[in-house]
Amino acid sequence: MPYELHYWPMIQGRGEFVRLALEEAGADYVDVARRDDEAGGIGPMLDRLSDPDDPRPPLAPPFLRDGEIVIGQSAAILLYLGPRLGLVGASERDRIWTHQLQLTVADAVDEAHDTHHPVGVGLYYADQKPEALRRAAEFRVARIPKYLGYFERVLAANGGARLVGADLSYADLSLFQLVAGLLYAFPKSTAAALRTNPRVARLHETVAQRPRLAAYLGSERRIPFTEDGIFRRYPELDP
Amino acid sequence: MPYELHYWPMIQGRGEFVRLALEEAGADYVDVARRDDEAGGIGPMLDRLSDPDDPRPPLAPPFLRDGEIVIGQSAAILLYLGPRLGLVGASERDRIWTHQLQLTVADAVDEAHDTHHPVGVGLYYADQKPEALRRAAEFRVARIPKYLGYFERVLAANGGARLVGADLSYADLSLFQLVAGLLYAFPKSTAAALRTNPRVARLHETVAQRPRLAAYLGSERRIPFTEDGIFRRYPELDP
Repeated sequence: MPYELHYWPMIQGRGEFVRLALEEAGADYVDVARRDDEAGGIGPMLDRLSDPDDPRPPLAPPFLRDGEIVIGQSAAILLYLGPRLGLVGASERDRIWTHQLQLTVADAVDEAHDTHHPVGVGLYYADQKPEALRRAAEFRVARIPKYLGYFERVLAANGGARLVGADLSYADLSLFQLVAGLLYAFPKSTAAALRTNPRVARLHETVAQRPRLAAYLGSERRIPFTEDGIFRRYPELDP
Repeated sequence: MPYELHYWPMIQGRGEFVRLALEEAGADYVDVARRDDEAGGIGPMLDRLSDPDDPRPPLAPPFLRDGEIVIGQSAAILLYLGPRLGLVGASERDRIWTHQLQLTVADAVDEAHDTHHPVGVGLYYADQKPEALRRAAEFRVARIPKYLGYFERVLAANGGARLVGADLSYADLSLFQLVAGLLYAFPKSTAAALRTNPRVARLHETVAQRPRLAAYLGSERRIPFTEDGIFRRYPELDP
């Protein structure tokens, strides 16, 4: 039975971290909300989120269904999928470390999101633009270099090409996605940060060239970055 | 050898989620930065964070040292400690679910933090007060009820007293801490939300009465909530 991924169909969002793992592994999965048959769309997702009989409901998308098991929170989904997809080491030590890196990527993603929504998700960007300008300035100057510098250090300590051990892990895929998103949203600041963090830049390039990933990224399954997602290109935020 | 917890010594912060697990389990641990001997203070913590030879460095406190293993990110620390402290079920399914709940608590904690620092952590509260007023309004009206309502639903589906199974898990301790922090920072809004989420209110009360937790909470080891921490009482944010 294929994995069922449930996520908003119009954006990469947090679902993309799960998609990249499924795609790289060549896993059998269905992106339920993007199906256009009667079993698809966001209906099943919304039904599950509000199902009063679900004993273990997710709070929000993305969530993954694997038979009887439903898991929410993208980092928890990757914790579950990692061993099944061969995208994490076998030892507990490697698994916890890979997960720690994933959580740090997730922190950076949250901060990238908050640059355009500092006051709250219930308001439009246009209604919080002055605050966004201030928050984005700090993000560009302090946070992008801090995060990319941290991952550069981790890569350097591990030989340069991978975050954990010799094999690709889901943390590598997630770091690729973080850099891809930052390059979209903050092209100038991110390009500058990548010049001083060459191992991160190289990881971003080489992950994109992996056969399955390259096929995925060139397909219609890869939703484009847009100003509805987490990473948004508002030129005034990266002047 | 005792566990070594490294965290800022003046605040509960994200270290508190780890402390509560260690205290409830009666674990042998040292709160390194709070020791006043020459092995204590924040020196060892800062040294570790900037150690160029550390192959697996944490990005930020808190981190836990268990012999040769060092783990950062509070949720990853609890993932590691849970089985060792008897604070998570034995099955993979229970462990992933407990972790998923922990990550949802962490999301709520992040949002509580951002009410007083919407523009960025590099600025003082006084320099982002108008933004804080707007963000806190949304947090009070929409987010506190959403999160507490979610945990109420999970508790109800599990019999009412615990989030996962019949035994206490680290997610229960973390939900206790979230409620304690919200009651400190947003006393009016949180009291109102607890009236409609009685199982969450009851969990907060009963966890505090567990013998080891009660002893801990009454001791000097429990750092008070202050306006330097994640949960801050600024009356204008909960009018």
